[in-house]
Amino acid sequence: MNDTLNAAVPPIARLAIDGDRLWQSLTHLARIGATPLGGVKRLALTDLDRQGRDQVVAWFEAAGLEVRIDQIGNIFGRRAGADASRAPVVAGSHIDTQPSGGRFDGSYGVLAGLEVVRTLNDRGVRTVAPIEIAVWTNEEGTRFTPVMMGSGAFAGVFTLEHVLARADLDGESVGEALRRIGYAGTAPLGAPIGAYFEAHIEQGPILEATGTTIGVVTGALGQRWFDVAVSGTNAHAGPTPMEARRDALLAAALLVGEVNRIAREQGPDGRGTVGYLQVSPNSRNVIPGEARFSVDFRHPSAAGLAAMEGALRAACAAVAREYRVEVAVDEVVQFPPCRFDADCVGAVRAAAQALGLSHRDIVSGAGHDAVYVARVAPAAMIFVPCKDGVSHNELEDARPEHLAAGCDVLLQAMLARAGVA
Amino acid sequence: MNDTLNAAVPPIARLAIDGDRLWQSLTHLARIGATPLGGVKRLALTDLDRQGRDQVVAWFEAAGLEVRIDQIGNIFGRRAGADASRAPVVAGSHIDTQPSGGRFDGSYGVLAGLEVVRTLNDRGVRTVAPIEIAVWTNEEGTRFTPVMMGSGAFAGVFTLEHVLARADLDGESVGEALRRIGYAGTAPLGAPIGAYFEAHIEQGPILEATGTTIGVVTGALGQRWFDVAVSGTNAHAGPTPMEARRDALLAAALLVGEVNRIAREQGPDGRGTVGYLQVSPNSRNVIPGEARFSVDFRHPSAAGLAAMEGALRAACAAVAREYRVEVAVDEVVQFPPCRFDADCVGAVRAAAQALGLSHRDIVSGAGHDAVYVARVAPAAMIFVPCKDGVSHNELEDARPEHLAAGCDVLLQAMLARAGVA
Repeated sequence: MNDTLNAAVPPIARLAIDGDRLWQSLTHLARIGATPLGGVKRLALTDLDRQGRDQVVAWFEAAGLEVRIDQIGNIFGRRAGADASRAPVVAGSHIDTQPSGGRFDGSYGVLAGLEVVRTLNDRGVRTVAPIEIAVWTNEEGTRFTPVMMGSGAFAGVFTLEHVLARADLDGESVGEALRRIGYAGTAPLGAPIGAYFEAHIEQGPILEATGTTIGVVTGALGQRWFDVAVSGTNAHAGPTPMEARRDALLAAALLVGEVNRIAREQGPDGRGTVGYLQVSPNSRNVIPGEARFSVDFRHPSAAGLAAMEGALRAACAAVAREYRVEVAVDEVVQFPPCRFDADCVGAVRAAAQALGLSHRDIVSGAGHDAVYVARVAPAAMIFVPCKDGVSHNELEDARPEHLAAGCDVLLQAMLARAGVA
Repeated sequence: MNDTLNAAVPPIARLAIDGDRLWQSLTHLARIGATPLGGVKRLALTDLDRQGRDQVVAWFEAAGLEVRIDQIGNIFGRRAGADASRAPVVAGSHIDTQPSGGRFDGSYGVLAGLEVVRTLNDRGVRTVAPIEIAVWTNEEGTRFTPVMMGSGAFAGVFTLEHVLARADLDGESVGEALRRIGYAGTAPLGAPIGAYFEAHIEQGPILEATGTTIGVVTGALGQRWFDVAVSGTNAHAGPTPMEARRDALLAAALLVGEVNRIAREQGPDGRGTVGYLQVSPNSRNVIPGEARFSVDFRHPSAAGLAAMEGALRAACAAVAREYRVEVAVDEVVQFPPCRFDADCVGAVRAAAQALGLSHRDIVSGAGHDAVYVARVAPAAMIFVPCKDGVSHNELEDARPEHLAAGCDVLLQAMLARAGVA
């Protein structure tokens, strides 16, 4: 990897961001909710989230941004452009974390946007369209469901009333939590966006494994989640002959193997995961009468997802027949595949190219705020490598030079869309 | 099934037990610790166990038995024989239950023995060898481990010091509990036994499925229990390509299938069960990094058990290699196969035959006190059908006529071994 800035690129490309300053901002924000293992626990709409929001807002204001809060608590910091009639070019992500979260998931996209603004300020660059930095509320969805709540409400996927009424395990609602931490804003949802870019760690192993600095994210895998319940008969492990059994765990185990086979047959971008499996009574010498498990299928095409569902239902029926158990399959949720805006994706690819950065097209396996924003505005994402592909983990890590490179791409892509006045 | 007494059998076989009285005793004892669903919760050495023991001792004394308690709390009720120098012929089982136990598991063997004594008393039959009824302490092992504690200590499988020091979750030891409920006896362990018979519900489906009244139990399956731990890597279900995964649950699921295959290859009396499986982090959209599961192998021969262990270890090694996970196999416990005494088994078979009862040889899949007693005395067991093979369950059920038939067989087998004076 030789990803230094290329002297042959156009003048505007030499407008490099300050990688050290970006790293300092990330390190500073990561202190709020820091965990012993070097991660961050800053759940949505908690006091720690308030502290994080207050810090980001203070930085926005110090950078001269005009701050507004919308009705679901999304924060926007606006830098005026030469043409006030144009919709803003927006960079954004989230600063809430998983319970055992890392320093970069989400925060990187917000602070890369801030670093873009600071760079424009330092160099006195005026854009034609306004620039905005967005901080979406509750992307992680661990305290309040659904996930990607702020961007989803912004895009009209959820109604405001629905999400404000969602409650955590202690019974506090989103609306109450927003008021308590001082982020129950009044700005209307869904203000027009001219283009949206979200920089993010990959949260997967592909860029690192291929020695690539920039992932040009062309879209996101669609997702279909199922719950499968298998019912057999509890029985004593000793006296019950093998052929007399109705073993729910055995049937479930065979289906776990089928989920894997089905995903491999829809490769290379098909994914199939059983992450959750619960056995009852879960006792060493009792043949299990019940087993429940989750299925998470992902694929870039709706046809691929439909084929996976069909294969799952067929496998369940076959196993139910052969092992004399009942198998019930319920769909839990689905996200259709997302294809990002070709022009925005092209701006990311061109920026990486112009900056001489190694890059490859990549499909996001995870959901991101950009996936919801893409329903109402042209959008794209920029991925940078993370160590061992690990995320949603206190050990999540990323290299400063990769984070800086992704921020440089963000700067160039935003300028390409906003125009320089 | 036409299992009425056969008028052509020898005179002593017409000495039938009183099935109604046996049923009344079972029903009466089941009130102590009765559960709403019709089962019994009478854990070893609790106040309820004391009440149950007191009831049985009162019945023993009313039947003229001389009661003694040994150092681990086993109760013996002795009916003198004509020849005091002969070791007694003993019937026994246990009266402690599972937390959600049934009315018949254990109690049947004790009260069938009591019914034999009552019948001999009613008819004024004197035996040559003494007759004893044994109530073994803590067969179930749910409050204090190990299971089959009283018969195991009696047979010298465990030292007295070891088992007296075992504590429950609240810290009370077996020794303290025995003193508290008044059953810390002084009789030495391991008094000689001339022959031992244990009547028990089958706890499995074979007798019911084949329409057989009496199971002539020729032995018990050996058992080898293992813990298997699979270690892979937690990863995000979305961004991680199938070929980059180290999915611990997938590997564990394939091994669950292998355990089943291995047991079937050692049929028809081979058994292989995964009753327990735990996944970590057990979250819908995280590829599991850890999975742990139990393996319970049973087989009538030591060679069969060894073959099953070898096949398990080979399967674990193969799956570890192919799926790039670590698999650790630890043996937890083993019980060698038990073959009951040919003469005692023959006495049971002959009694069933003489009484005109349908019968078949059967191997016990579960452990019983008789398996430990068999290490120090000639022993055998008599099985009767239970509804749907269900046991260790409040819904456990058995038919009065089957219980009476098993008790008749017990009476005849005991008389055959003790001799009529």
